[in-house]
Amino acid sequence: MTAPLLVRACRRERVERTPVWFMRQAGRCLADYRELRERFGILDIARNPELSARVTAMPVDQLGVDAAVLYADIMLPLDGMGVPFRIEPEIGPIIERPVRTARDVDALRVVAAEEATPYLFESIRALRASLPPDVALIGFAGAPFTIASYLVEGRPSRDHARAKGMLAGEPALWDRLLGTLAEVISRYLVAQVKAGVDVIQLFDSWAGVLSPVDYERAVLPHSRRIFDAVASTGVPRIHFFTGNPELLRLAARNCEAVSVDWRIGLAEAWRRIGDARAIQGNLDPAICLAPFPVVAERTRAVLREAGRRRGHIFNLGHGVLPETDADTLRRITALVREETAA
Amino acid sequence: MTAPLLVRACRRERVERTPVWFMRQAGRCLADYRELRERFGILDIARNPELSARVTAMPVDQLGVDAAVLYADIMLPLDGMGVPFRIEPEIGPIIERPVRTARDVDALRVVAAEEATPYLFESIRALRASLPPDVALIGFAGAPFTIASYLVEGRPSRDHARAKGMLAGEPALWDRLLGTLAEVISRYLVAQVKAGVDVIQLFDSWAGVLSPVDYERAVLPHSRRIFDAVASTGVPRIHFFTGNPELLRLAARNCEAVSVDWRIGLAEAWRRIGDARAIQGNLDPAICLAPFPVVAERTRAVLREAGRRRGHIFNLGHGVLPETDADTLRRITALVREETAA
Repeated sequence: MTAPLLVRACRRERVERTPVWFMRQAGRCLADYRELRERFGILDIARNPELSARVTAMPVDQLGVDAAVLYADIMLPLDGMGVPFRIEPEIGPIIERPVRTARDVDALRVVAAEEATPYLFESIRALRASLPPDVALIGFAGAPFTIASYLVEGRPSRDHARAKGMLAGEPALWDRLLGTLAEVISRYLVAQVKAGVDVIQLFDSWAGVLSPVDYERAVLPHSRRIFDAVASTGVPRIHFFTGNPELLRLAARNCEAVSVDWRIGLAEAWRRIGDARAIQGNLDPAICLAPFPVVAERTRAVLREAGRRRGHIFNLGHGVLPETDADTLRRITALVREETAA
Repeated sequence: MTAPLLVRACRRERVERTPVWFMRQAGRCLADYRELRERFGILDIARNPELSARVTAMPVDQLGVDAAVLYADIMLPLDGMGVPFRIEPEIGPIIERPVRTARDVDALRVVAAEEATPYLFESIRALRASLPPDVALIGFAGAPFTIASYLVEGRPSRDHARAKGMLAGEPALWDRLLGTLAEVISRYLVAQVKAGVDVIQLFDSWAGVLSPVDYERAVLPHSRRIFDAVASTGVPRIHFFTGNPELLRLAARNCEAVSVDWRIGLAEAWRRIGDARAIQGNLDPAICLAPFPVVAERTRAVLREAGRRRGHIFNLGHGVLPETDADTLRRITALVREETAA
């Protein structure tokens, strides 16, 4: 049986057209999702296998995308670590008791993934059974740095000063914290693959606040450990980061595909990392709020930059903004299909 | 008479040691500033020549820095444009009636700078008369893109979606808005030089949210116009941006010095732009919250990267964080002096 289009593109096989999906496509801009959200919180949906599977599948039919990405939150693995958290509307994740001392780090629990987030694997099994076989199911997790930043800061931070303070000032404690997270996230992703996901993406949403030196020394070894753990499963691994193109060369190691934002052109990105990696991206999500002729022009510009190289996956450079019209995403998908069909 | 050390470093002359100053050094972490702030708002101080001169001079004695940077706000030129604004604590500038339509743009007034912000020039004249002659007085302004983003969004924005929407979707209107701002800011900076500043810095704090293509096409020509206007005065021009090192090569045009953040190493930055430009930076302000041995190690690392090249100006990569201990800045200044004295 042929693997899903997205999987083949990640492996840089010659494909019939460029695959398309959108980060945050499940939720946010979809009308029937918004209706659900009037009755349920984000975490209520994410922790309910039936609801999360339903939201995950919505964009496949509605937008025509080539992949379903799990409706989940990067904080879910904390459910097994003994770290209570909540999602505050307009703000983001709030950690009730931030993790700042050796005692806090030692108290973090590492349990079997199936025990920590059983609902997630139930949702994956149901989805893989019901999705069309050519549609890839993407599993994901937050990367150790991004999760650690939330744990240490206790909430979204502009400066990440406490997290950077621990990284620079208490390197042994920092390594223990990220090492624990790497173990938890490795288990979480390997269990997702066993349950049925076809591709995994590691989200290092905050990595761009770091210098290349700090990123390479204090962050990348922990993400690498996760990629190594997933390697044994054979599914393609996508590494997402945003905010600092200087990290690209480093972030592209140890994975099949790297997801880049609009801060660097795709041609330049490939020039930096060579042709051996697939690249996902990189339309600016803010552009999706413009009139469609502008969106179409920018979509074509991304495809021109990709230049029909093997291993291009069309996506935004970051998640869909909530104000986005779902119809715009539908039309982008159709345009990419039309423009790239062999 | 010898020009101030900072001026000579901007011109890449051989200097007796590396000059040091800190963005946001006037205010924030200084105890006597905080006392003032219990009685006065930020804009009350900025609009009062006596108070703003007093705050501007504080760090010269207290931190031992080689430059005084005007205590002012990048929104002050709006005082002459007929755009009411306020500074909301913990949030930032709020524009009461955002600028979004052709009518809004046409309504922006362009007046003589001395008429728009007379208090500022009075403060500069007093400062230049009272500061030691080897201490540079730095004037500054926000760049057209950064000011435009506030004007269009109406407040600080995470995604800059409205501003990017106008940039991409209404390019003629966008050019008119930025053209008007370029004219106002040119007048504002040239008048600062006439009143006595020795160096000017243009702050494009939000430029890093843009792609290199958008930056070059829709932003840089307007900033360039300002640099061209200031060129006739002969004072060194520093271009500040943060958040996307891919813009460095572009941002380094048309100025004597470019200010880079920690997202790129100084050696790599010079490799990109060549030796003909001075570079300012690039300690991460978050590091200043760590214990001093860590700060010292990182300060030395910045100096090692600079490698005693002509034209290095020691600074942070962005503004001093409010929680910073002033003593840390004092000790950084002393360390840089000690390490770089010829």
